[in-house]
Amino acid sequence: MHPHGATGPLVAALDIGGTKIAGALVDAEGQLLTKALRPTPATEDGESVLRAVTDVLDELRAVPQWPATIAVGIGSAGPVDALHGTVSPVNVPGWREFPLVSRVSQAVGGLPVALTGDGVAMTAAEHWQGAARGYDNALCMVVSTGVGGGLVLGGALVPGPTGNAGHIGHISVDLDGDLCPCGSRGCVERIASGPNIARSALGGGWQPPAGVAATAAAVADAARAGDRVALAAFDRAAQALAAGIAATATLVEIQVAVVGGGVANAGPVLFDPLREHLSRYATLSFAAGVEVVPAKLGTDAGLVGAAAAAAESLRLEGFTSAP
Amino acid sequence: MHPHGATGPLVAALDIGGTKIAGALVDAEGQLLTKALRPTPATEDGESVLRAVTDVLDELRAVPQWPATIAVGIGSAGPVDALHGTVSPVNVPGWREFPLVSRVSQAVGGLPVALTGDGVAMTAAEHWQGAARGYDNALCMVVSTGVGGGLVLGGALVPGPTGNAGHIGHISVDLDGDLCPCGSRGCVERIASGPNIARSALGGGWQPPAGVAATAAAVADAARAGDRVALAAFDRAAQALAAGIAATATLVEIQVAVVGGGVANAGPVLFDPLREHLSRYATLSFAAGVEVVPAKLGTDAGLVGAAAAAAESLRLEGFTSAP
Repeated sequence: MHPHGATGPLVAALDIGGTKIAGALVDAEGQLLTKALRPTPATEDGESVLRAVTDVLDELRAVPQWPATIAVGIGSAGPVDALHGTVSPVNVPGWREFPLVSRVSQAVGGLPVALTGDGVAMTAAEHWQGAARGYDNALCMVVSTGVGGGLVLGGALVPGPTGNAGHIGHISVDLDGDLCPCGSRGCVERIASGPNIARSALGGGWQPPAGVAATAAAVADAARAGDRVALAAFDRAAQALAAGIAATATLVEIQVAVVGGGVANAGPVLFDPLREHLSRYATLSFAAGVEVVPAKLGTDAGLVGAAAAAAESLRLEGFTSAP
Repeated sequence: MHPHGATGPLVAALDIGGTKIAGALVDAEGQLLTKALRPTPATEDGESVLRAVTDVLDELRAVPQWPATIAVGIGSAGPVDALHGTVSPVNVPGWREFPLVSRVSQAVGGLPVALTGDGVAMTAAEHWQGAARGYDNALCMVVSTGVGGGLVLGGALVPGPTGNAGHIGHISVDLDGDLCPCGSRGCVERIASGPNIARSALGGGWQPPAGVAATAAAVADAARAGDRVALAAFDRAAQALAAGIAATATLVEIQVAVVGGGVANAGPVLFDPLREHLSRYATLSFAAGVEVVPAKLGTDAGLVGAAAAAAESLRLEGFTSAP
């Protein structure tokens, strides 16, 4: 948080996930002026979840700089429907086609509200301030409990008509593979998400140390210590991610794939086999050069990105997401 | 060919493939005024292949309407490199990073020349005049000896920086699958191209009737007659195409997939299982509605599309590819 007067325009950003709802006022340099946080009452009815959102907004509206706010940007767990302004987050059953945009707009006195998926928001943040900065064609992805992503093409964020584009976690890279909760088979997420890495390691006979939970982070620790089953679990995840990144490079000619999220914290245990597999799947001349780099922004990426995506989609004057 | 005065601007289109080189003068309504054709001397040196191109251009330049020509559009077998104006068609070994754009420009007295891949050109044609007309977000693909394609997003053709975007034939949908000549594994083309459909049927014990070649068309005939091995070969190809289309819909939110090429002529034998498999792979709300329709334009799509792609990339006044 840097010192800030009331000179520039601000965007109120909301980052809505299955466990927490975060809000912030973001300035035109991507700095967060203030931040508010509530747990997501994910199992409660839709109005209760909305109340957590309006509580966050009320906290932001109490800040002296609030009057400089010109718009609200929402990045939400998906699927979202930016065309209709509704959200249906998988992990928030009380919200199904919930009219979040109109309800938020009501709560802030009619300011313009832009909605996008959280993968698109993270991508906007990395393009504005992070590892995709300066690239005109990029895939940004989060590998965590799930696998999400977003695209920048020709220098512009590509949310797609409904705000869900770049959803690399649910492309099938194994058409005869395991059923995915989404209904498809062999999705990238079904192989490469944190829980699936842990499942794969446990299935191979790996066990976490006593008192340690069987998470992807624990598998990463074991892999770094040379455990072959743990290394194989990361290698398989890396292979699926590589096939997905190569598919994206072949379809839309990206120059860089930015990989963030908890699983990316494993470092070389993930990135080394990922780059190796990628060289085998991305073979055509125009796809072969795609770089893989870790994401730069941390937990605030969702907020910074919700603001950036709103600035881009609402074409906010004096508040541009272009570097 | 309709009667045409010398009033409107024309684009000279070239469609360059491994077996033939076609040329035409195309008007702003997408009509072909004249057409020239040469076999591709694919095994000869690069200058000999170029001579076939300049012969086609000479034939076009002899037409009375030639002075109305304002640009040349080239759609070429890939990979192409639109950034550097070079082509390296897999089946034309004499051309490796061959400077086709500058050589064609020389041959036509310095007119602007736009180069794109043949999949992108076919897409431009279907968007302008064919089955993708009126859609802002579309995948168009050719399923033939190979599998190629192109994308329209947000109403605009997306050639990608090098002119190869939409190359769905070489995304992997089977990460542990058979090696593909491109070096990757389990590519859509490796499963769904005409020769691979025939290979799959032969491998299952199917034999063509005496005197009939073992082509995908012969497999389609057998499938229509109820041959179970032939039906299975088409079903497997349809499954791979469905996984590829679903991946595209999940990554970039297309509304329609237009499928053309020789294999698409099989009709319901291909399209019925394709739509069935697609409903299983394209499961997320924003991807589930994607339609699959046959291409509308025939063999002239490459020429019409080369002109349309040039009009779009060169922003030719009075000659627009938008409907």
